Amino acid sequence: MNQTHDPALRSWVTSANVPNADFPIQNLPFAVLRRAGTDERFRPAVAIGDHALDLRALHATGIAPSEGLEACLDDTLNRLMGEGARVWSALRADLSALLAEGSEHAPALQSCLIALGDVEYRVPAHIGDYTDFYTSIHHATNIGRLFRPDNPLLPNYRWVPIGYHGRSSSIGVSGQTFPRPCGQLKPPDAERPEVGPCRRLDYELEIGIFIGPGNALGDPVDIDDAESHVFGLCLLNDWSARDIQAWEYQPLGPFLSKSFATTISPWIVTMEALEPFRSPWERDTGEPGALPYLSSARNSAAGAIDMQLEVLLQSAAMRDSDVAPQSLSRSNFTDAYWTVAQMVAHHTVNGCNLRPGDLFGSGTMSGNQEGSQGALIEITRGGVAPITLGNGEERTFLQDGDTVILRAHCEREGAVRIGFGEAGGTVLPASSA
Amino acid sequence: MNQTHDPALRSWVTSANVPNADFPIQNLPFAVLRRAGTDERFRPAVAIGDHALDLRALHATGIAPSEGLEACLDDTLNRLMGEGARVWSALRADLSALLAEGSEHAPALQSCLIALGDVEYRVPAHIGDYTDFYTSIHHATNIGRLFRPDNPLLPNYRWVPIGYHGRSSSIGVSGQTFPRPCGQLKPPDAERPEVGPCRRLDYELEIGIFIGPGNALGDPVDIDDAESHVFGLCLLNDWSARDIQAWEYQPLGPFLSKSFATTISPWIVTMEALEPFRSPWERDTGEPGALPYLSSARNSAAGAIDMQLEVLLQSAAMRDSDVAPQSLSRSNFTDAYWTVAQMVAHHTVNGCNLRPGDLFGSGTMSGNQEGSQGALIEITRGGVAPITLGNGEERTFLQDGDTVILRAHCEREGAVRIGFGEAGGTVLPASSA
Repeated sequence: MNQTHDPALRSWVTSANVPNADFPIQNLPFAVLRRAGTDERFRPAVAIGDHALDLRALHATGIAPSEGLEACLDDTLNRLMGEGARVWSALRADLSALLAEGSEHAPALQSCLIALGDVEYRVPAHIGDYTDFYTSIHHATNIGRLFRPDNPLLPNYRWVPIGYHGRSSSIGVSGQTFPRPCGQLKPPDAERPEVGPCRRLDYELEIGIFIGPGNALGDPVDIDDAESHVFGLCLLNDWSARDIQAWEYQPLGPFLSKSFATTISPWIVTMEALEPFRSPWERDTGEPGALPYLSSARNSAAGAIDMQLEVLLQSAAMRDSDVAPQSLSRSNFTDAYWTVAQMVAHHTVNGCNLRPGDLFGSGTMSGNQEGSQGALIEITRGGVAPITLGNGEERTFLQDGDTVILRAHCEREGAVRIGFGEAGGTVLPASSA
Repeated sequence: MNQTHDPALRSWVTSANVPNADFPIQNLPFAVLRRAGTDERFRPAVAIGDHALDLRALHATGIAPSEGLEACLDDTLNRLMGEGARVWSALRADLSALLAEGSEHAPALQSCLIALGDVEYRVPAHIGDYTDFYTSIHHATNIGRLFRPDNPLLPNYRWVPIGYHGRSSSIGVSGQTFPRPCGQLKPPDAERPEVGPCRRLDYELEIGIFIGPGNALGDPVDIDDAESHVFGLCLLNDWSARDIQAWEYQPLGPFLSKSFATTISPWIVTMEALEPFRSPWERDTGEPGALPYLSSARNSAAGAIDMQLEVLLQSAAMRDSDVAPQSLSRSNFTDAYWTVAQMVAHHTVNGCNLRPGDLFGSGTMSGNQEGSQGALIEITRGGVAPITLGNGEERTFLQDGDTVILRAHCEREGAVRIGFGEAGGTVLPASSA
């Protein structure tokens, strides 16, 4: 922790000082954006209160030149991500000083600010590879019970940080819309599959993990070095077509049931900003320890992150009558069975190379309590126990027009609360319908 | 078919006219290369006999300017891939005329030729996403029998072109070397997994399929339009760690057992060059037909490609005593249960977007005959029936120092044989060993 985490720090961008703001000066997350509706080039920015500080514009002022700022001149964050913690930390310190109350540069920086209400975002990095993990044992058990009633949690789960390769091309940023996917569906009692729009469309509440500096092919990352390869976290909705998934997923895993869309939040909260919210990595009594390549004193002491997560739903009818999105569940990243460092160490133990801008999904974050399940298939027990929304609508799975919104924040005594903004996406009717 | 396929056509690059040359003038495959051992920029080239025609150098001569040649100035083929069949075909016609016997430009083009013995290659495209299919029913049955003796071929196999997302970052070009991967291994009778070098390292003989123009998210590709989205084919070795795979693959599919390396051949043979070798897509009696989105008259008439495949092995001892690589198996792309067009149509039926340079693997091409199994795990029946090499060495799985070479060619009466060159890769000792 350093002076950028000081809870007493306030910004001359006064909206950053409002209690419970997502983007106080202690946060300073990164996105790539431009003024909405223009054909300006996209560029990196940090959020401060209800504004974005345009880093390309900052660079042009000549104030506070740095290696980090030089790495922010592209239309993605990949270069900055590749720089590593020394450069990130120096840039954060500069930005914190520039945006702090009393900064002599405040007048000159006014022209680098854009109101968040006026921007449009893009996926903030070129994502070379996207890997989706499965780190909530509660989710794995809930889902496993539905797909394999006799065998809900497979024997490898407690040893292997299970993951699979996901599709990069269909990752979009908050505001993404997509048609309900079509595909092969086979009800259990049908003789042969049919083709049509998915009937069991779901969301998954996940954390996205952006990789910083990569590793060379054949060169595993040690768990104690793992977090130096991580740039920061965002929110990630791994939209899932459960009926397509049930029919296609054996033996090679989910494919078209996931590849039609994945929605992430635009703002990436850096690992440094998350420092005040680190927690021990603990397992319940009776759970095995981790194998040596997934174990370290540092990981045990502070490998987890206390990050509160929420899913909200707003149907088309709710939107039409100005009813606010309704909360469906809340969970916490500490519900994960494996930490970020363990995911990195596992991913590379075979020599697989990571590259700056690669994205991991945490897997659906479900807790073990009622109200903490991160997907509809869990909440509605496979679609047999519908939920009733505030306006009387029922849901087992998503309907056309539904908007799903993920939110998250970190909050702890002695630290200033920081937020992640949101990842929202909307289901359109199937193209062929 | 057009004048570029004319069997009577010969080149002034006389090595292209040698019977059974891989790269006669009827082939004209694309790669990205530079002079070996230099720091020249990589650039696109076509193969002709034992030479490569440097397309950036050709562009600089000003001879035969075209849209296609303009798209060959980067250090990848992505731009050319995105152009589509009209541009590809015009470029092929130009190159065929320039390289044909009697071309007035022969003297001027001499300076654009580089001997293949003097070049080094790179992966010819930026591969945004890599998808590996599983289209040989013989392989699926052979493998299924080993992983699930009671249930070798799953009920979805005959309906769904099964595939999964693969890892892009670790794809390398022929000549790739990689350390034997480490990972979690759990012998069936062990109480808990251990971590160590893979003991059941295998290859998989596959065809690589490079995507040309993409499709928009939410916009499925019709099967009759599918091949207009395909640039060409290469060879692909999907190296596989069978012991890591057996322990990790449920429920989300292969992950670290595949992501440590994938080796492709440098030369991409275009779909137009393959025209003379198209075959009907036929299924054995008793097999079901395909669902409507995977069916078309055109696909049935000529959806398959008659492409002969071979795997060879050269051990370190063989290399040291100059013993040539030994053939392990031969199969044919017509052993595939699904065609290239069906893979494209299936991949996009859910709205998933493809991008120029995306790569598909066909899945291991095994036939139903002895000697046609495209992986050691099949040949040695899961490692219980070792093979003996010509020099007396035994193999169940790959040893350190083994080089695996994939080769392919198309040959048919009335057409000139065309070859794919080769995809070779070598196993190094485990890093931790």
